[in-house]
Amino acid sequence: MGAEARLLELGIDLAEGSHPVANYEMVAASGRLLFVSGHGPVQANGALLRGKVGDAFSLEQAYEAARLAGLAVLATLRGELGSLDRVSRIVKVLGMVNCAPGFNRMPEVIDGCSDLLIEVFGDNRGRHARSAIGVAELPFDIPVEIELVCEIE
Amino acid sequence: MGAEARLLELGIDLAEGSHPVANYEMVAASGRLLFVSGHGPVQANGALLRGKVGDAFSLEQAYEAARLAGLAVLATLRGELGSLDRVSRIVKVLGMVNCAPGFNRMPEVIDGCSDLLIEVFGDNRGRHARSAIGVAELPFDIPVEIELVCEIE
Amino acid sequence: MGAEARLLELGIDLAEGSHPVANYEMVAASGRLLFVSGHGPVQANGALLRGKVGDAFSLEQAYEAARLAGLAVLATLRGELGSLDRVSRIVKVLGMVNCAPGFNRMPEVIDGCSDLLIEVFGDNRGRHARSAIGVAELPFDIPVEIELVCEIE
Repeated sequence: MGAEARLLELGIDLAEGSHPVANYEMVAASGRLLFVSGHGPVQANGALLRGKVGDAFSLEQAYEAARLAGLAVLATLRGELGSLDRVSRIVKVLGMVNCAPGFNRMPEVIDGCSDLLIEVFGDNRGRHARSAIGVAELPFDIPVEIELVCEIE
Repeated sequence: MGAEARLLELGIDLAEGSHPVANYEMVAASGRLLFVSGHGPVQANGALLRGKVGDAFSLEQAYEAARLAGLAVLATLRGELGSLDRVSRIVKVLGMVNCAPGFNRMPEVIDGCSDLLIEVFGDNRGRHARSAIGVAELPFDIPVEIELVCEIE
Repeated sequence: MGAEARLLELGIDLAEGSHPVANYEMVAASGRLLFVSGHGPVQANGALLRGKVGDAFSLEQAYEAARLAGLAVLATLRGELGSLDRVSRIVKVLGMVNCAPGFNRMPEVIDGCSDLLIEVFGDNRGRHARSAIGVAELPFDIPVEIELVCEIE
Protein backbone atom coordinates (compact mmCIF):
# COMPACT_ATOMS: atom_id res chain seq x y z
CA MET A 1 0.00 0.00 0.00
CA GLY A 2 1.29 3.44 -0.90
CA ALA A 3 1.82 6.20 1.64
CA GLU A 4 -1.14 8.26 0.41
CA ALA A 5 -3.53 5.31 0.66
CA ARG A 6 -2.13 4.53 4.08
CA LEU A 7 -2.75 8.10 5.26
CA LEU A 8 -6.39 7.78 4.20
CA GLU A 9 -6.68 4.48 6.03
CA LEU A 10 -5.20 6.04 9.16
CA GLY A 11 -7.64 8.93 8.89
CA ILE A 12 -4.80 11.46 8.77
CA ASP A 13 -5.70 14.69 7.01
CA LEU A 14 -2.49 16.63 6.42
CA ALA A 15 -2.51 20.40 6.71
CA GLU A 16 -0.94 22.55 4.02
CA GLY A 17 2.83 22.68 4.21
CA SER A 18 4.24 25.33 6.53
CA HIS A 19 6.42 28.23 5.46
CA PRO A 20 9.99 29.01 6.46
CA VAL A 21 10.29 31.36 9.45
CA ALA A 22 13.43 32.96 8.00
CA ASN A 23 15.55 33.03 4.83
CA TYR A 24 15.64 29.37 3.83
CA GLU A 25 13.60 26.71 2.03
CA MET A 26 11.63 23.90 3.63
CA VAL A 27 13.26 21.36 1.28
CA ALA A 28 16.26 21.18 -1.04
CA ALA A 29 17.12 18.34 -3.39
CA SER A 30 20.35 16.97 -4.79
CA GLY A 31 19.96 14.01 -7.10
CA ARG A 32 17.58 11.57 -5.45
CA LEU A 33 18.18 12.94 -1.95
CA LEU A 34 15.79 15.44 -0.42
CA PHE A 35 17.05 17.40 2.58
CA VAL A 36 14.17 18.59 4.75
CA SER A 37 14.63 21.59 7.06
CA GLY A 38 13.94 21.43 10.77
CA HIS A 39 10.20 21.30 11.51
CA GLY A 40 8.43 22.01 14.76
CA PRO A 41 5.13 20.75 16.19
CA VAL A 42 2.30 22.66 14.51
CA GLN A 43 -1.11 22.32 16.18
CA ALA A 44 -4.41 22.04 14.28
CA ASN A 45 -4.94 25.79 14.73
CA GLY A 46 -1.59 26.50 13.08
CA ALA A 47 0.18 27.60 16.27
CA LEU A 48 3.42 26.01 17.43
CA LEU A 49 3.64 24.15 20.72
CA ARG A 50 6.11 25.82 23.10
CA GLY A 51 7.98 24.77 26.22
CA LYS A 52 10.68 22.44 27.51
CA VAL A 53 10.40 18.67 27.74
CA GLY A 54 10.69 17.39 31.28
CA ASP A 55 9.14 20.62 32.51
CA ALA A 56 6.22 22.06 30.48
CA PHE A 57 5.91 18.76 28.56
CA SER A 58 5.77 15.26 30.00
CA LEU A 59 7.28 12.36 28.09
CA GLU A 60 3.85 11.44 26.70
CA GLN A 61 3.13 15.01 25.63
CA ALA A 62 6.57 15.28 24.04
CA TYR A 63 5.93 12.06 22.10
CA GLU A 64 2.78 13.67 20.70
CA ALA A 65 4.76 16.83 19.89
CA ALA A 66 7.28 14.75 17.93
CA ARG A 67 4.38 13.17 16.03
CA LEU A 68 3.04 16.64 15.22
CA ALA A 69 6.47 17.68 13.95
CA GLY A 70 6.51 14.54 11.80
CA LEU A 71 3.09 15.46 10.40
CA ALA A 72 4.45 18.91 9.53
CA VAL A 73 7.29 17.21 7.64
CA LEU A 74 4.80 15.03 5.75
CA ALA A 75 2.78 18.11 4.81
CA THR A 76 5.93 19.75 3.46
CA LEU A 77 6.88 16.64 1.50
CA ARG A 78 3.45 16.38 -0.09
CA GLY A 79 3.54 20.09 -0.95
CA GLU A 80 6.95 19.64 -2.56
CA LEU A 81 6.39 16.33 -4.33
CA GLY A 82 2.65 16.39 -5.05
CA SER A 83 2.33 12.93 -3.50
CA LEU A 84 4.05 11.09 -0.65
CA ASP A 85 4.11 8.05 -2.93
CA ARG A 86 7.17 9.56 -4.60
CA VAL A 87 9.22 8.96 -1.42
CA SER A 88 11.18 5.74 -1.88
CA ARG A 89 12.91 5.78 1.51
CA ILE A 90 13.08 7.78 4.70
CA VAL A 91 16.86 7.68 5.15
CA LYS A 92 17.89 9.68 8.22
CA VAL A 93 16.10 11.55 10.98
CA LEU A 94 17.68 14.03 13.37
CA GLY A 95 15.41 14.56 16.35
CA MET A 96 16.21 17.48 18.63
CA VAL A 97 14.55 17.77 22.01
CA ASN A 98 14.42 21.05 23.95
CA CYS A 99 15.30 19.46 27.30
CA ALA A 100 14.81 20.67 30.81
CA PRO A 101 18.00 19.90 32.77
CA GLY A 102 18.31 16.20 33.48
CA PHE A 103 15.74 15.00 30.97
CA ASN A 104 17.40 12.36 28.78
CA ARG A 105 14.66 10.10 27.43
CA MET A 106 14.99 11.57 23.95
CA PRO A 107 14.71 8.23 22.13
CA GLU A 108 11.21 7.66 23.51
CA VAL A 109 10.23 11.21 22.54
CA ILE A 110 11.49 10.98 18.97
CA ASP A 111 9.66 7.66 18.51
CA GLY A 112 6.58 9.89 18.17
CA CYS A 113 7.95 10.87 14.77
CA SER A 114 9.58 7.55 13.85
CA ASP A 115 6.43 5.55 14.67
CA LEU A 116 4.43 7.86 12.40
CA LEU A 117 6.90 7.54 9.51
CA ILE A 118 6.86 3.75 9.73
CA GLU A 119 3.04 3.67 9.99
CA VAL A 120 2.74 5.80 6.86
CA PHE A 121 5.58 4.52 4.69
CA GLY A 122 5.71 0.93 5.97
CA ASP A 123 8.71 -1.08 7.10
CA ASN A 124 10.63 -1.03 3.83
CA ARG A 125 10.34 2.64 3.00
CA GLY A 126 9.77 4.08 6.44
CA ARG A 127 12.53 2.63 8.60
CA HIS A 128 15.44 5.02 8.96
CA ALA A 129 18.72 5.81 10.66
CA ARG A 130 18.36 8.35 13.45
CA SER A 131 20.03 10.43 16.10
CA ALA A 132 18.15 11.92 19.03
CA ILE A 133 19.79 14.68 21.01
CA GLY A 134 18.92 17.15 23.75
CA VAL A 135 19.59 20.74 22.84
CA ALA A 136 19.78 23.82 25.05
CA GLU A 137 17.23 25.87 23.14
CA LEU A 138 15.06 25.57 20.03
CA PRO A 139 13.55 28.38 17.92
CA PHE A 140 10.43 29.90 19.54
CA ASP A 141 10.96 27.52 22.47
CA ILE A 142 9.35 24.62 20.57
CA PRO A 143 9.75 21.32 22.48
CA VAL A 144 10.88 19.20 19.50
CA GLU A 145 12.40 19.80 16.07
CA ILE A 146 12.70 17.17 13.33
CA GLU A 147 14.90 17.34 10.25
CA LEU A 148 15.32 14.48 7.82
CA VAL A 149 16.85 13.20 4.64
CA CYS A 150 14.75 11.06 2.30
CA GLU A 151 15.20 9.48 -1.09
CA ILE A 152 12.78 10.03 -3.96
CA GLU A 153 12.08 7.84 -6.96
CA MET B 1 26.21 36.16 -12.76
CA GLY B 2 28.58 33.64 -11.21
CA ALA B 3 29.45 33.56 -7.52
CA GLU B 4 33.00 34.85 -8.04
CA ALA B 5 31.79 37.85 -10.08
CA ARG B 6 29.14 38.49 -7.46
CA LEU B 7 31.74 38.50 -4.67
CA LEU B 8 33.71 41.14 -6.57
CA GLU B 9 30.57 43.21 -7.04
CA LEU B 10 29.79 42.95 -3.32
CA GLY B 11 33.36 44.03 -2.51
CA ILE B 12 33.95 40.85 -0.51
CA ASP B 13 37.58 39.82 -0.30
CA LEU B 14 37.75 36.28 1.09
CA ALA B 15 40.55 35.30 3.42
CA GLU B 16 42.49 32.10 2.86
CA GLY B 17 40.64 29.01 3.99
CA SER B 18 41.07 28.12 7.65
CA HIS B 19 42.66 24.95 8.96
CA PRO B 20 41.11 22.18 11.05
CA VAL B 21 41.57 22.62 14.80
CA ALA B 22 41.85 18.86 15.30
CA ASN B 23 42.11 15.60 13.34
CA TYR B 24 39.63 16.15 10.51
CA GLU B 25 39.31 17.81 7.11
CA MET B 26 37.46 21.03 6.33
CA VAL B 27 35.63 19.33 3.44
CA ALA B 28 34.93 15.80 2.23
CA ALA B 29 33.24 14.84 -1.03
CA SER B 30 31.14 11.90 -2.14
CA GLY B 31 29.97 12.06 -5.72
CA ARG B 32 28.60 15.52 -6.35
CA LEU B 33 27.98 16.22 -2.66
CA LEU B 34 30.48 18.19 -0.61
CA PHE B 35 30.18 17.94 3.16
CA VAL B 36 31.67 20.99 4.86
CA SER B 37 32.84 20.80 8.48
CA GLY B 38 31.57 23.14 11.16
CA HIS B 39 33.05 26.64 10.78
CA GLY B 40 33.18 29.42 13.35
CA PRO B 41 33.29 33.21 12.97
CA VAL B 42 36.82 34.23 12.03
CA GLN B 43 37.59 37.94 12.34
CA ALA B 44 39.77 39.91 9.89
CA ASN B 45 42.74 39.43 12.23
CA GLY B 46 42.29 35.67 12.12
CA ALA B 47 40.99 35.34 15.69
CA LEU B 48 37.69 33.63 16.48
CA LEU B 49 34.83 35.53 18.11
CA ARG B 50 33.98 34.07 21.52
CA GLY B 51 30.97 34.30 23.85
CA LYS B 52 27.34 33.30 24.21
CA VAL B 53 24.47 34.76 22.21
CA GLY B 54 21.93 36.56 24.38
CA ASP B 55 24.72 37.44 26.80
CA ALA B 56 28.11 38.53 25.30
CA PHE B 57 26.47 38.86 21.85
CA SER B 58 23.25 40.71 21.00
CA LEU B 59 21.01 39.42 18.22
CA GLU B 60 22.55 41.91 15.78
CA GLN B 61 26.08 40.96 16.75
CA ALA B 62 25.22 37.27 16.48
CA TYR B 63 23.81 37.86 12.98
CA GLU B 64 27.19 39.36 12.00
CA ALA B 65 28.97 36.40 13.61
CA ALA B 66 26.88 34.01 11.50
CA ARG B 67 27.84 36.02 8.41
CA LEU B 68 31.51 35.72 9.39
CA ALA B 69 31.13 31.96 9.79
CA GLY B 70 29.53 31.89 6.32
CA LEU B 71 32.50 33.81 4.91
CA ALA B 72 34.83 31.25 6.48
CA VAL B 73 32.87 28.49 4.72
CA LEU B 74 33.17 30.34 1.40
CA ALA B 75 36.93 30.69 1.90
CA THR B 76 37.15 26.94 2.51
CA LEU B 77 35.06 26.16 -0.57
CA ARG B 78 37.20 28.37 -2.79
CA GLY B 79 40.36 26.81 -1.39
CA GLU B 80 38.96 23.34 -2.08
CA LEU B 81 37.37 23.95 -5.49
CA GLY B 82 39.56 26.74 -6.89
CA SER B 83 36.42 28.75 -7.70
CA LEU B 84 33.03 29.17 -6.06
CA ASP B 85 31.55 28.97 -9.55
CA ARG B 86 31.85 25.20 -9.30
CA VAL B 87 29.12 25.13 -6.62
CA SER B 88 25.85 24.25 -8.32
CA ARG B 89 23.68 24.36 -5.20
CA ILE B 90 23.88 25.09 -1.51
CA VAL B 91 21.75 22.18 -0.30
CA LYS B 92 21.57 22.16 3.50
CA VAL B 93 22.79 24.37 6.32
CA LEU B 94 22.99 23.42 9.98
CA GLY B 95 23.33 26.53 12.11
CA MET B 96 24.30 26.04 15.73
CA VAL B 97 24.01 28.91 18.18
CA ASN B 98 25.83 28.95 21.52
CA CYS B 99 22.85 30.22 23.49
CA ALA B 100 22.63 31.91 26.85
CA PRO B 101 19.67 30.38 28.73
CA GLY B 102 16.37 31.58 27.30
CA PHE B 103 17.71 32.90 24.00
CA ASN B 104 15.72 31.29 21.18
CA ARG B 105 15.86 33.62 18.19
CA MET B 106 18.23 31.31 16.34
CA PRO B 107 16.50 31.67 12.95
CA GLU B 108 17.26 35.40 12.89
CA VAL B 109 20.87 34.73 13.88
CA ILE B 110 21.48 32.10 11.22
CA ASP B 111 20.00 34.39 8.56
CA GLY B 112 23.39 36.14 8.80
CA CYS B 113 24.81 33.12 6.98
CA SER B 114 21.80 32.34 4.79
CA ASP B 115 21.49 35.95 3.56
CA LEU B 116 25.17 35.86 2.56
CA LEU B 117 24.85 32.57 0.70
CA ILE B 118 21.85 33.83 -1.26
CA GLU B 119 23.58 37.16 -2.03
CA VAL B 120 26.60 35.33 -3.38
CA PHE B 121 25.06 32.33 -5.14
CA GLY B 122 21.73 33.89 -6.09
CA ASP B 123 18.24 32.51 -5.61
CA ASN B 124 18.62 29.38 -7.72
CA ARG B 125 21.93 28.15 -6.40
CA GLY B 126 21.96 29.81 -2.99
CA ARG B 127 18.62 28.91 -1.43
CA HIS B 128 18.87 25.94 0.90
CA ALA B 129 17.18 23.74 3.47
CA ARG B 130 18.22 24.59 7.02
CA SER B 131 17.95 23.79 10.70
CA ALA B 132 18.87 26.27 13.40
CA ILE B 133 19.41 25.00 16.92
CA GLY B 134 20.66 26.26 20.25
CA VAL B 135 23.47 24.21 21.71
CA ALA B 136 24.88 24.16 25.23
CA GLU B 137 28.50 24.79 24.25
CA LEU B 138 30.57 25.25 21.10
CA PRO B 139 34.32 24.70 20.63
CA PHE B 140 36.40 27.60 22.02
CA ASP B 141 33.15 29.23 23.15
CA ILE B 142 32.45 30.55 19.63
CA PRO B 143 28.94 32.09 19.39
CA VAL B 144 27.94 30.40 16.11
CA GLU B 145 28.98 27.36 14.10
CA ILE B 146 27.89 26.61 10.52
CA GLU B 147 28.14 23.31 8.69
CA LEU B 148 26.69 22.69 5.26
CA VAL B 149 26.21 20.32 2.38
CA CYS B 150 26.53 21.63 -1.16
CA GLU B 151 26.43 20.15 -4.63
CA ILE B 152 29.18 20.68 -7.18
CA GLU B 153 29.04 20.54 -10.97
CA MET C 1 46.23 -2.36 3.74
CA GLY C 2 42.48 -2.88 4.08
CA ALA C 3 40.54 -1.90 7.18
CA GLU C 4 39.98 -5.48 8.32
CA ALA C 5 43.70 -6.31 8.11
CA ARG C 6 44.47 -3.08 9.91
CA LEU C 7 42.07 -3.97 12.75
CA LEU C 8 43.87 -7.26 13.21
CA GLU C 9 47.23 -5.48 13.24
CA LEU C 10 45.94 -3.03 15.86
CA GLY C 11 44.66 -5.94 17.95
CA ILE C 12 41.13 -4.58 17.90
CA ASP C 13 38.46 -7.19 18.34
CA LEU C 14 35.10 -5.65 17.50
CA ALA C 15 32.03 -6.61 19.49
CA GLU C 16 28.82 -7.54 17.73
CA GLY C 17 26.90 -4.55 16.44
CA SER C 18 24.54 -2.95 18.95
CA HIS C 19 20.79 -2.72 18.59
CA PRO C 20 18.61 0.35 18.33
CA VAL C 21 17.23 1.56 21.65
CA ALA C 22 14.00 2.70 20.00
CA ASN C 23 12.11 2.54 16.69
CA TYR C 24 14.88 3.15 14.16
CA GLU C 25 17.68 1.34 12.31
CA MET C 26 21.40 1.57 13.06
CA VAL C 27 22.14 2.26 9.37
CA ALA C 28 20.25 3.33 6.27
CA ALA C 29 21.62 3.53 2.74
CA SER C 30 20.83 5.63 -0.28
CA GLY C 31 22.94 4.92 -3.31
CA ARG C 32 26.55 4.71 -2.20
CA LEU C 33 25.94 6.74 0.97
CA LEU C 34 25.41 5.03 4.31
CA PHE C 35 23.86 7.10 7.08
CA VAL C 36 24.82 5.72 10.49
CA SER C 37 22.64 6.48 13.53
CA GLY C 38 24.02 8.09 16.66
CA HIS C 39 26.15 5.63 18.67
CA GLY C 40 27.21 5.89 22.30
CA PRO C 41 30.23 4.49 24.15
CA VAL C 42 29.63 0.80 24.82
CA GLN C 43 32.01 -0.80 27.35
CA ALA C 44 33.42 -4.32 27.01
CA ASN C 45 30.65 -5.60 29.32
CA GLY C 46 28.01 -4.14 27.01
CA ALA C 47 26.98 -1.30 29.33
CA LEU C 48 26.99 2.32 28.22
CA LEU C 49 29.21 4.88 29.90
CA ARG C 50 27.16 7.62 31.57
CA GLY C 51 27.88 11.14 32.81
CA LYS C 52 28.79 14.65 31.68
CA VAL C 53 32.14 15.66 30.23
CA GLY C 54 33.92 18.25 32.34
CA ASP C 55 32.26 16.78 35.42
CA ALA C 56 32.03 12.95 35.65
CA PHE C 57 34.46 12.60 32.71
CA SER C 58 37.82 14.35 32.30
CA LEU C 59 39.04 15.32 28.84
CA GLU C 60 41.16 12.17 28.67
CA GLN C 61 38.29 9.94 29.76
CA ALA C 62 35.99 11.63 27.27
CA TYR C 63 38.53 11.03 24.48
CA GLU C 64 38.40 7.31 25.36
CA ALA C 65 34.59 7.44 25.41
CA ALA C 66 34.61 8.92 21.89
CA ARG C 67 36.91 6.09 20.80
CA LEU C 68 34.48 3.56 22.30
CA ALA C 69 31.60 5.19 20.41
CA GLY C 70 33.71 4.94 17.24
CA LEU C 71 34.29 1.24 17.91
CA ALA C 72 30.52 0.78 18.28
CA VAL C 73 30.07 2.43 14.87
CA LEU C 74 32.67 0.09 13.34
CA ALA C 75 30.87 -2.91 14.83
CA THR C 76 27.63 -1.71 13.28
CA LEU C 77 29.27 -1.17 9.89
CA ARG C 78 30.80 -4.64 9.88
CA GLY C 79 27.46 -6.16 10.87
CA GLU C 80 25.77 -4.27 8.04
CA LEU C 81 28.37 -4.71 5.31
CA GLY C 82 29.99 -8.02 6.27
CA SER C 83 33.43 -6.37 6.01
CA LEU C 84 34.80 -2.90 6.74
CA ASP C 85 36.76 -3.22 3.50
CA ARG C 86 33.59 -2.24 1.65
CA VAL C 87 33.83 1.30 3.10
CA SER C 88 35.45 3.52 0.47
CA ARG C 89 35.37 6.74 2.47
CA ILE C 90 34.37 8.06 5.87
CA VAL C 91 32.70 11.26 4.69
CA LYS C 92 31.26 13.17 7.63
CA VAL C 93 31.24 12.79 11.40
CA LEU C 94 28.96 14.61 13.81
CA GLY C 95 30.35 14.39 17.32
CA MET C 96 28.06 15.41 20.16
CA VAL C 97 29.44 15.92 23.64
CA ASN C 98 27.25 15.93 26.75
CA CYS C 99 28.93 18.97 28.31
CA ALA C 100 29.01 20.21 31.86
CA PRO C 101 28.55 24.00 31.79
CA GLY C 102 31.66 25.74 30.53
CA PHE C 103 33.33 22.70 28.97
CA ASN C 104 34.19 23.53 25.36
CA ARG C 105 37.12 21.34 24.33
CA MET C 106 34.87 19.19 22.13
CA PRO C 107 37.38 18.96 19.25
CA GLU C 108 39.91 17.18 21.47
CA VAL C 109 37.20 14.83 22.74
CA ILE C 110 35.92 13.87 19.30
CA ASP C 111 39.48 13.19 18.12
CA GLY C 112 39.06 9.96 20.11
CA CYS C 113 36.75 8.82 17.32
CA SER C 114 38.50 10.56 14.41
CA ASP C 115 41.92 9.18 15.38
CA LEU C 116 40.44 5.67 15.44
CA LEU C 117 38.79 6.05 12.04
CA ILE C 118 42.03 7.28 10.46
CA GLU C 119 44.03 4.49 12.14
CA VAL C 120 41.67 1.87 10.77
CA PHE C 121 40.81 3.23 7.31
CA GLY C 122 44.04 5.12 6.63
CA ASP C 123 44.51 8.68 5.42
CA ASN C 124 42.74 8.31 2.08
CA ARG C 125 39.62 6.52 3.23
CA GLY C 126 39.53 7.58 6.86
CA ARG C 127 39.88 11.36 6.79
CA HIS C 128 36.53 13.10 7.05
CA ALA C 129 34.66 16.37 7.45
CA ARG C 130 33.38 16.89 10.99
CA SER C 131 31.45 19.04 13.39
CA ALA C 132 31.84 18.79 17.15
CA ILE C 133 29.19 20.34 19.34
CA GLY C 134 28.23 20.48 22.99
CA VAL C 135 24.68 19.41 23.67
CA ALA C 136 22.55 19.87 26.76
CA GLU C 137 21.63 16.22 27.22
CA LEU C 138 22.21 12.90 25.48
CA PRO C 139 20.11 9.71 25.70
CA PHE C 140 20.77 7.75 28.93
CA ASP C 141 23.19 10.52 29.95
CA ILE C 142 25.96 9.07 27.74
CA PRO C 143 28.97 11.43 27.55
CA VAL C 144 29.47 11.26 23.77
CA GLU C 145 27.40 10.35 20.72
CA ILE C 146 28.79 9.82 17.22
CA GLU C 147 26.84 9.74 13.98
CA LEU C 148 28.43 9.56 10.57
CA VAL C 149 27.98 9.33 6.84
CA CYS C 150 30.24 7.04 4.83
CA GLU C 151 30.52 5.96 1.24
CA ILE C 152 30.57 2.33 0.17
CA GLU C 153 32.03 0.74 -2.94
